[in-house]
Amino acid sequence: MTAWMLWPDMARQPNYGGFRAPPQSMGPPPGADPQLWQWFVSVDADRSGAISAEELKQALVNGDWSQFDLDTVKMLMGIFDTDRSGTIGFEEFSGLWKYISDWQGVYRHFDADRSGSIDGHELQRALSSFGYNLSPALLRLVVDKYVPPTEYGTPGGITFDRFVRACVVIKTITENFQRLDTDHDGWIQINYEHFLKIVLTAP
Amino acid sequence: MTAWMLWPDMARQPNYGGFRAPPQSMGPPPGADPQLWQWFVSVDADRSGAISAEELKQALVNGDWSQFDLDTVKMLMGIFDTDRSGTIGFEEFSGLWKYISDWQGVYRHFDADRSGSIDGHELQRALSSFGYNLSPALLRLVVDKYVPPTEYGTPGGITFDRFVRACVVIKTITENFQRLDTDHDGWIQINYEHFLKIVLTAP
Repeated sequence: MTAWMLWPDMARQPNYGGFRAPPQSMGPPPGADPQLWQWFVSVDADRSGAISAEELKQALVNGDWSQFDLDTVKMLMGIFDTDRSGTIGFEEFSGLWKYISDWQGVYRHFDADRSGSIDGHELQRALSSFGYNLSPALLRLVVDKYVPPTEYGTPGGITFDRFVRACVVIKTITENFQRLDTDHDGWIQINYEHFLKIVLTAP
Repeated sequence: MTAWMLWPDMARQPNYGGFRAPPQSMGPPPGADPQLWQWFVSVDADRSGAISAEELKQALVNGDWSQFDLDTVKMLMGIFDTDRSGTIGFEEFSGLWKYISDWQGVYRHFDADRSGSIDGHELQRALSSFGYNLSPALLRLVVDKYVPPTEYGTPGGITFDRFVRACVVIKTITENFQRLDTDHDGWIQINYEHFLKIVLTAP
């Protein structure tokens, strides 16, 4: 049983990954979406009432059953731990759940050949549909950075978590650049401190 | 048995990680360092005569037994797969082995409190000893990015592989910046293509 069982029409589709299935059912608190509460409880392995980064890492899995990269997990914690408690409460979890579901939709949409994973060409199409018109040289660099290495030199698929990270990195860097490029000529002036800050705050 | 058994004087030190121990002994080819050959053979799990990224990822382990991040493994492949075959041959492996041993020495050196891992302050001292005089704000960003999240909000140690990656990222970005800062005033002019290229080629 995978996350896809929540949407029966997706059960026949390739496994794109997402949350591991919850081990057992528990009663939701009043007013909570029972299904979402069940996922929250299952991710909160130590039953502390909040999800730590480590618990999130254990709960998230790609379509090929590989774990999410620590950097992707940290990125998700950074976005959804809005009260900066270091953990994800139930309210925060519903935002995280929606974010991952939305990205699963994007990933599925761009998996044009229904292979179950995004290849370099599909990533390129995704990025240009988002409005990032990267040069062929840059697109190659993006693919090289985010494609996992494979055993026999054939390019492997870009797993879900690395696809999301690639897109978020391009978005973050581009927005930072555009903010500085006030005259829109494609060039910026930047000092060392700011330059490194942009690099270090990208996921 | 860990990698440290190669250097008997290190056997009493904390476990800083490195290669997993080889499962069994095999005879080296003529002229090869027998110990190094033994490690090479043990990492080359499918006995293909060359080490794939996946084999390298399986073989490398931090002091806390966590696996190296995929990005660190890809960085190592990028540095040492000098013939761009997609795998590491025995010649390339000896360079990789020395690189990791040297970084283990650096990691150990900066683990001032002998805790077995580098904390944020120790990373800061390491970076400034390398000549990177980052502002307190940047140092905090470096630590935030590379420290693994921990269960109870207490800052965890920076594992060996993330320590190496942090140092290499700072080095790469700084050198790229300095190359463009021809008048040494701490400011550069850069276009979008080049900016993104620097980000994407950093490990």
